[in-house]
Amino acid sequence: MNNIASIAIKLFGGDEPCRCGGAHEICLHCEQCRVSEPDRVYDPALGIAAVIDATVLKATANSQEVIDLCQIANRYQTASVCINSHFIPLIKAALDGVKSCTVINFPLGSGSASAIASETEAVLDLGVDEVDMVQNLSALFSNDQESALASILAASRQCMKRGALLKVILETCYLSDTQIITSCLLAKKAGAHFVKTSTGFGTGGATTEHIALMRKVVGPKLGVKASGGIKTRESALAMLSAGANRIGASSVTALL
Amino acid sequence: MNNIASIAIKLFGGDEPCRCGGAHEICLHCEQCRVSEPDRVYDPALGIAAVIDATVLKATANSQEVIDLCQIANRYQTASVCINSHFIPLIKAALDGVKSCTVINFPLGSGSASAIASETEAVLDLGVDEVDMVQNLSALFSNDQESALASILAASRQCMKRGALLKVILETCYLSDTQIITSCLLAKKAGAHFVKTSTGFGTGGATTEHIALMRKVVGPKLGVKASGGIKTRESALAMLSAGANRIGASSVTALL
Repeated sequence: MNNIASIAIKLFGGDEPCRCGGAHEICLHCEQCRVSEPDRVYDPALGIAAVIDATVLKATANSQEVIDLCQIANRYQTASVCINSHFIPLIKAALDGVKSCTVINFPLGSGSASAIASETEAVLDLGVDEVDMVQNLSALFSNDQESALASILAASRQCMKRGALLKVILETCYLSDTQIITSCLLAKKAGAHFVKTSTGFGTGGATTEHIALMRKVVGPKLGVKASGGIKTRESALAMLSAGANRIGASSVTALL
Repeated sequence: MNNIASIAIKLFGGDEPCRCGGAHEICLHCEQCRVSEPDRVYDPALGIAAVIDATVLKATANSQEVIDLCQIANRYQTASVCINSHFIPLIKAALDGVKSCTVINFPLGSGSASAIASETEAVLDLGVDEVDMVQNLSALFSNDQESALASILAASRQCMKRGALLKVILETCYLSDTQIITSCLLAKKAGAHFVKTSTGFGTGGATTEHIALMRKVVGPKLGVKASGGIKTRESALAMLSAGANRIGASSVTALL
């Protein structure tokens, strides 16, 4: 048995083999089984633009910057535009053929499960298509995996009801490999569609090593988003080669 | 007419003189009039401990660090312990004679008004005594004062119903003096109890100049909290002399 499978068994027990290709080997009995869904892996035929979440999340962003980003996203047909929730109505009106994405429990990953549930509901009520949540880092660092799982479930159940995509941000810069494995397993078990590396507000961003590990843990049925510090086409391609199928980036034109 | 009064009239019109001592000179017709309430200014007889919000908000905090901080707060009888909302139940159980405080819309100040309202309700349901919210910086930087006001009202109305104290974090490091004046007026108008300088996650913390300006704008009936980078007794005393009556600090024992 590999280390990933050992961690999975320790977390959830194991009574059936995995059928979806995750390195955890045992079935996680996920909140949403994705075995019959298409793979969420990068298809080079699509090109890079189609997998970029064009992002502006800094505290000082204003509506003009957000509009400018939407125009770039429309021109290149990026996967989404990702902004703080104040700007959801603005991008919903500005985007054409591009998904809307926002962040919750962001960037500290320390909100209570009930606060996460109600924040998720509020942003879904504004009509957002994709939700990038920071996992409950406070629970993880307190060795309280039960609360960490409950916090992701608080968001995933809301997203499932509305058909919204959920990405769980691990904030890998603060995590050991064991914590990255644990976080991926919790996100998958809770029904997330994607695991994502970074907020862009921590002490570091995506690395190809972390992307490869995350892809290995979750297998082909979940997406893996690389974010934080990806400013060149070369680094984006390296992340995609390592296993990512979505890229979060502020410097969109530099990547394309 | 002074510059502060001009800004107030431009924002809200002005039909009556101010009765509560704010430099805005005109009555703001605040959501909650505080003219008959006691002054919220520093009383040196109380000592420093009584005005400290003992704070740990970093993403990597765990339950043991929070418990340790509560023990220090209990020993010195600080005003409150301020933590991310995941830890509210933990500090409610650990504190003795010390208020519980949490943060919302934090630290980016970019949540939608509806997300702020529901996050506020969620933390109040957990029984927290004080709420420190970041103002809607996205709206402020987009010259959308109406949404900036609405976002504070979204929190203040919830706090009023539950008898909780609301502090509005301006994040002064990003603001011009005019924006600081505008933000203080919006917070006061919306019924906040306090204005506060900083999240501790921006590019700078409290300065005595900003504290003096904030105190001048709001007058004696609102509190002024200095936070961000206050690590010594001398800097705490300087903030109190400049007009603060509450200090947010992580290095509690160093200050006492």
